[in-house]
Amino acid sequence: MTDRALVDELLTLVEPGKVLTDAASLEAYGKDWTKHFAPAPLAIVFPKSTEQVQAIVRWANQRQVALVPSGGRTGLSAAAVAANGEVVVAFDYMNQILAFNEFDRSVVCQPGVITEQLQTFAEDQGLYYPVDFASAGSSQIGGNIGTNAGGIKVIRYGMTRNWVAGLKVVTGKGDLLELNKDLIKNATGYDLRQLFIGAEGTLGFVVEATMRLDRAPNNLTAMVLGTPDFDSIMPVLHAFRDKLDLTAFEFLSDKALAKVLGRGDVPAPFDTPCPFYALLEFEASTEEVANQALATFEHCVEQGWVIDGVMSQSEQQLQNLWKLREYISETISHWTPYKNDISVTVSKVPAFLKDIDAIVAERYPDFEVVWYGHIGDGNLHLNILKPDDMSKDEFFARCATVNTQVFETVQKYNGSISAEHGVGMTKRDYLGYSRSPAEIEYMKAVKAVFDPNGIMNPGKIFPAL
Amino acid sequence: MTDRALVDELLTLVEPGKVLTDAASLEAYGKDWTKHFAPAPLAIVFPKSTEQVQAIVRWANQRQVALVPSGGRTGLSAAAVAANGEVVVAFDYMNQILAFNEFDRSVVCQPGVITEQLQTFAEDQGLYYPVDFASAGSSQIGGNIGTNAGGIKVIRYGMTRNWVAGLKVVTGKGDLLELNKDLIKNATGYDLRQLFIGAEGTLGFVVEATMRLDRAPNNLTAMVLGTPDFDSIMPVLHAFRDKLDLTAFEFLSDKALAKVLGRGDVPAPFDTPCPFYALLEFEASTEEVANQALATFEHCVEQGWVIDGVMSQSEQQLQNLWKLREYISETISHWTPYKNDISVTVSKVPAFLKDIDAIVAERYPDFEVVWYGHIGDGNLHLNILKPDDMSKDEFFARCATVNTQVFETVQKYNGSISAEHGVGMTKRDYLGYSRSPAEIEYMKAVKAVFDPNGIMNPGKIFPAL
Repeated sequence: MTDRALVDELLTLVEPGKVLTDAASLEAYGKDWTKHFAPAPLAIVFPKSTEQVQAIVRWANQRQVALVPSGGRTGLSAAAVAANGEVVVAFDYMNQILAFNEFDRSVVCQPGVITEQLQTFAEDQGLYYPVDFASAGSSQIGGNIGTNAGGIKVIRYGMTRNWVAGLKVVTGKGDLLELNKDLIKNATGYDLRQLFIGAEGTLGFVVEATMRLDRAPNNLTAMVLGTPDFDSIMPVLHAFRDKLDLTAFEFLSDKALAKVLGRGDVPAPFDTPCPFYALLEFEASTEEVANQALATFEHCVEQGWVIDGVMSQSEQQLQNLWKLREYISETISHWTPYKNDISVTVSKVPAFLKDIDAIVAERYPDFEVVWYGHIGDGNLHLNILKPDDMSKDEFFARCATVNTQVFETVQKYNGSISAEHGVGMTKRDYLGYSRSPAEIEYMKAVKAVFDPNGIMNPGKIFPAL
Repeated sequence: MTDRALVDELLTLVEPGKVLTDAASLEAYGKDWTKHFAPAPLAIVFPKSTEQVQAIVRWANQRQVALVPSGGRTGLSAAAVAANGEVVVAFDYMNQILAFNEFDRSVVCQPGVITEQLQTFAEDQGLYYPVDFASAGSSQIGGNIGTNAGGIKVIRYGMTRNWVAGLKVVTGKGDLLELNKDLIKNATGYDLRQLFIGAEGTLGFVVEATMRLDRAPNNLTAMVLGTPDFDSIMPVLHAFRDKLDLTAFEFLSDKALAKVLGRGDVPAPFDTPCPFYALLEFEASTEEVANQALATFEHCVEQGWVIDGVMSQSEQQLQNLWKLREYISETISHWTPYKNDISVTVSKVPAFLKDIDAIVAERYPDFEVVWYGHIGDGNLHLNILKPDDMSKDEFFARCATVNTQVFETVQKYNGSISAEHGVGMTKRDYLGYSRSPAEIEYMKAVKAVFDPNGIMNPGKIFPAL
């Protein structure tokens, strides 16, 4: 069939005006935050109901058309990029919060609900949706589930997976499955819900998700601590973790801090320059807890692990301290960074970071390297900034040459080549550094169960069938 | 091949003395805590290493011999029963704790580690393994993972699933997979670890599990509250949950309490007789928290939701209050109870329980019914006791006739026919009340990926292929 004929058929499946083929839409909806691939979708379709999603998937099977799910398109692995004439299925019109139950602390969301919309909704109920990250203002719940989004509060609250009470999905075969019925306990065979979480849309599309909420945190308080070297961050983590229930433990390098302070809209935490900074957060629910935090800070200073520090005394100060960490990604995007999102178990972080640092220093002596990340859960973001006078192509080509060495080191430490950004297309060819050949074969066979014709986001995670 | 020839081959795969075929062993290892099926295994084999497990699975594929995993055999769904000439693979000699990492708070366990052994090990490190239930003294980690064991602390700590950092499994094809590498963040494709959790050994065998530990709880304190009726329990739950971080919220009926008190070794919580009792637990980490608990208790009394109550003032009192709940299952086992382990979302519990109660009262007017369960997570245990003068066969036959009605009610409330006991053989024919035909087909197809010859615990969850 011609492209035109396919689009004509697609038009019959959704409401008028809900298929776009203009150049600007194809460009906008065909990509995510990665910049490696040129978007080239056939069309963008906007379903408004589960039935329309099913109709699109069944049609795609019949016509052997590839589908790419599209949420907030804030992904960093090109999992939502349509570069090969696919039909993009965008969930912008399935963006309603459908129900709330105060006793179950659950919210039924359509996949297009923005993360921040859910966070705000929870706050309005006196509750809390604890999954949070820099792109929460535009990422969507469907995408969060597709990548099992993590972020800055994982040390306490876990990944998105922990907050998915139930899912309605349309599989690659077009079947509607209601998975887990929002139950806390349900031992009736395989928990297929778990398979769809983190599957990057390769098994099916989420059409409804029941998300759990938590009680609201009580007087969240942050500290920023400057350390004399990276190695000191780990004993600081352990000292605080032993005394307090931490809600976050992040780190950033002096270069990351300098970039954010260079914006001019965020105050410095303190004047003493330090090579590394830890940002930690806890609920100062009583004065006792706050005093415990200060005593632990003093202990860390005495041990020589901390040079200087500050503790938030107000909501405004809390926000300002968090900006030091949360603005990094957006701020450095100006330099078209080459991003690596890697993880190891927490105990291996110091040795691992030293090894990676040595490789990077040797191979990129002329590039600026910015480290930051979620050190409390072993997740490091390694960002290499493009020199202003170098072309994007040359820069990425040079970065790619060192990938193998970085990933070999990840493999040596039994780590993950993608801690929370997913595989998509950018990590696809490196999957073997984190998953064995046998695992990959089982994954492909599982995909074939749910998507026998290979129409669901083909070429993501593994090469297209 | 003859049975004798099969056993002779099996003998070559493990160490001398590690295959048993005597009648007492076949009887002991061929069953779990259910009493519906007569055990009839071909042999019991005790591997001592992953390599031996792989050898057994490969041999079973070659010879088309069915394998049944065997842990503590405390299961309540006959998932570990070998009633059809299977070879039972018992993990008694793979029962070591292999490693501990204090920074990662992780423990590498062989599958035969007893739950209590892990709990005690954690305590010795000043940490906590929070999954707990009545059979913790004999159940094994491999079995806990196979059924995604829940128990009494799920409201705060979640199911076993939450504590599995990584798994090594031997699939039904005999492949060894190392799943998730113990990472907190790992977004590299499908999380196959999740499939094996709760699969009841139908996809493969767990040969090693890295379990996470939590910080030790701080001054755990329990309350037992008597309520005038079942409906009052729910506002009590909500009142306490709004004010405290509960670690447990259980309930029991007066009949359940009477059975436990009848043992003579546990003191009554208080004298006032009440039709229902709630048992709740929290960390009284400061005096403020304890005072908050007392104030909430008073509020509940004022509202008429609570008639009488008691709060533990010592570790001994805490233990005694817990015995009121934890001894129920063991105590009523004397009456060969017909057990139903069902769940709905928390908000639906009162209406659901009322409906089930009406059915039971109508259909079993002459039977004694004992209710208890984990009401904080929507999980109710319905136990019908066998009259002393009725035969087991007649009793179970009469109970079975009402199953359909109970399960139709579960379905009507969108609940689970097995909250935490699994499907095994006892719930197999009722699976359709909780999972759709399409879901069941996908589950079978997933099983075929990992166990194409159908040798892994066949007849459990679904009928044998």
